[in-house]
Amino acid sequence: MTTYNLALVGFGGVNRALAELVRDDPDRFESLGFQLKIVAITDLAFGSLVQADGIDIAAVLAMPRGATFEGLPGGSKDPRNQEVIKSSPADIVVEATFTNPTTGEPAVSHVRWALESGKHVVTTNKGPVALHGIELTRLAEENGVRFEYEGSVMSGTPVLRLAKKMFAGLQIEGVQGILNGTSNYVLGQMETGLSLDQAVADAQALGYAEADPTADIEGSDVRLKVAILANELLGADITPQDVTTTGIQGITPDDVVRALGDGKRWKLIGQAVREADGSVAASVGPVSLPASHPLAGISGATNAVSFDTDLLGSVTVSGPGAGRIETAYALVSDIVAVDSFEKGSIRA
Amino acid sequence: MTTYNLALVGFGGVNRALAELVRDDPDRFESLGFQLKIVAITDLAFGSLVQADGIDIAAVLAMPRGATFEGLPGGSKDPRNQEVIKSSPADIVVEATFTNPTTGEPAVSHVRWALESGKHVVTTNKGPVALHGIELTRLAEENGVRFEYEGSVMSGTPVLRLAKKMFAGLQIEGVQGILNGTSNYVLGQMETGLSLDQAVADAQALGYAEADPTADIEGSDVRLKVAILANELLGADITPQDVTTTGIQGITPDDVVRALGDGKRWKLIGQAVREADGSVAASVGPVSLPASHPLAGISGATNAVSFDTDLLGSVTVSGPGAGRIETAYALVSDIVAVDSFEKGSIRA
Repeated sequence: MTTYNLALVGFGGVNRALAELVRDDPDRFESLGFQLKIVAITDLAFGSLVQADGIDIAAVLAMPRGATFEGLPGGSKDPRNQEVIKSSPADIVVEATFTNPTTGEPAVSHVRWALESGKHVVTTNKGPVALHGIELTRLAEENGVRFEYEGSVMSGTPVLRLAKKMFAGLQIEGVQGILNGTSNYVLGQMETGLSLDQAVADAQALGYAEADPTADIEGSDVRLKVAILANELLGADITPQDVTTTGIQGITPDDVVRALGDGKRWKLIGQAVREADGSVAASVGPVSLPASHPLAGISGATNAVSFDTDLLGSVTVSGPGAGRIETAYALVSDIVAVDSFEKGSIRA
Repeated sequence: MTTYNLALVGFGGVNRALAELVRDDPDRFESLGFQLKIVAITDLAFGSLVQADGIDIAAVLAMPRGATFEGLPGGSKDPRNQEVIKSSPADIVVEATFTNPTTGEPAVSHVRWALESGKHVVTTNKGPVALHGIELTRLAEENGVRFEYEGSVMSGTPVLRLAKKMFAGLQIEGVQGILNGTSNYVLGQMETGLSLDQAVADAQALGYAEADPTADIEGSDVRLKVAILANELLGADITPQDVTTTGIQGITPDDVVRALGDGKRWKLIGQAVREADGSVAASVGPVSLPASHPLAGISGATNAVSFDTDLLGSVTVSGPGAGRIETAYALVSDIVAVDSFEKGSIRA
């Protein structure tokens, strides 16, 4: 059976969830036709660890906060990302560091180093995809490897690969989505009469919202995802700056409650639409949707995307948009895609 | 470029829509890497026509009702289904005759003849899949060809192939769906206070419901689809008779309006769930869903399926469940799957 050596770049929630799957559930991967061996980890807090024979996952998962890899064979307290990515015996680099929405760094460099050294990259990191997706995909092709990033939109819920694989022969005219669970949860709470601030505090208490909820509330998180959808599904070549963006900070409880009385629901909608001249218009903003709209019924922290297609009309997929295990599954689906490529079973 | 020769069995709405795509939009197929040539048609009303060099599609589509293929080269007024399926120079047999929910005939025989003579089968016909899907898939494997039937559930909206291709490595624990547009439309109309009979009359006026709406209202249409989902997605081996079935005929406008006041919506739900002992329990019946349920917001004639999975939780796809072009697209997606198989790009 094929074994893929993994290098985990970033050892936070998502990559830890992937490591737990590798530790606890090897049968899941064997039933897919391969085994996974983690041969390197590099992380800002833990430092770096490279062990070509395979890292003892249970041991590193049990390390307390504040510990480092220093003193372990092949270990260092320093996050030697570049060295690990370029020189470790990994087949696949799993990039799951934080998202920098402006430069994409350091994730963009991580991806470049990996692809240039002939390693596949799977990532859940929106930054490199939204800012440099087209260039990085080309770089992967030049190096005969794959750059896979299903988790950059809606965690493990299939969206990008669904559109590419399930809609063969269809023309996608546009996409519309609820792409941020926090803002959707907040708008739902405001339907019960809560103020924006109260609803945000609720979301924080439930762990949906970050301490600083700005990216969720003001739409900049969705903006990155819209750029990805526009480029991937509509063949655009835009950056997040090209996405006209308004958040939900201007929506009042009064707006939301009054809309509900009219059978409508306010949603933060990210969308990209092909215009008559062939260009793609992309935007993020609050929209009051009629109850019959396929996105009107998407409740709580759930995410959804509706695809407008020429032969099928509107098709919608909804599911989790976050969560460490749900996002780790996106990496699994990306590794399956790498495996299909390696085994020659995906057409170029 | 590869050319696939098609034999159309049944020349009603769906196969006519496919023929129109072949006539009007060859670029759509060429961009997928193949060309389609219709070399045979057999139909109860028109009779049979076999022309190895390719039938003039525009001419046969323009034939008036009541005309037959008699007098055309290779034509006959008799529907010589068996002869056409076994002996025509088709690579792919496109089965789109009517669904017999009890025996599956004559479609089951059509599929058997095709597979036994080494021809791929693509079909939108629920009958053969619900009643003999496992056997026919085995027969296809024995003959080195494909049996594809995405359109048997939710027309061209990806459901069966989505679950198989997009959920690799996930365990599907259960599926729940709104699988009949007529009954969903009727329940929605009843929310406005209409009686069942009035709502059915509305659905008939809009072309959603047949002259005899029994199969839609009493759940027997959904029963077939639940059997397919249970066998395909949960590895069951059941027949439609194993699906406990209740229709919506017992639901009153009062029930529906009162539920709406409580924030709930009555839906006709088909479901299949894996039990603790590994067996699969399958049923069809009306359920009053809370507004937060992913199927509660599915309005009008739209269909939807929610998949319960171990790592992603609930993922839902919604889209058209009927329509001649939407259903013809299911055939296109099946032909893409046949093409991938022929080109060796799908793993067994």
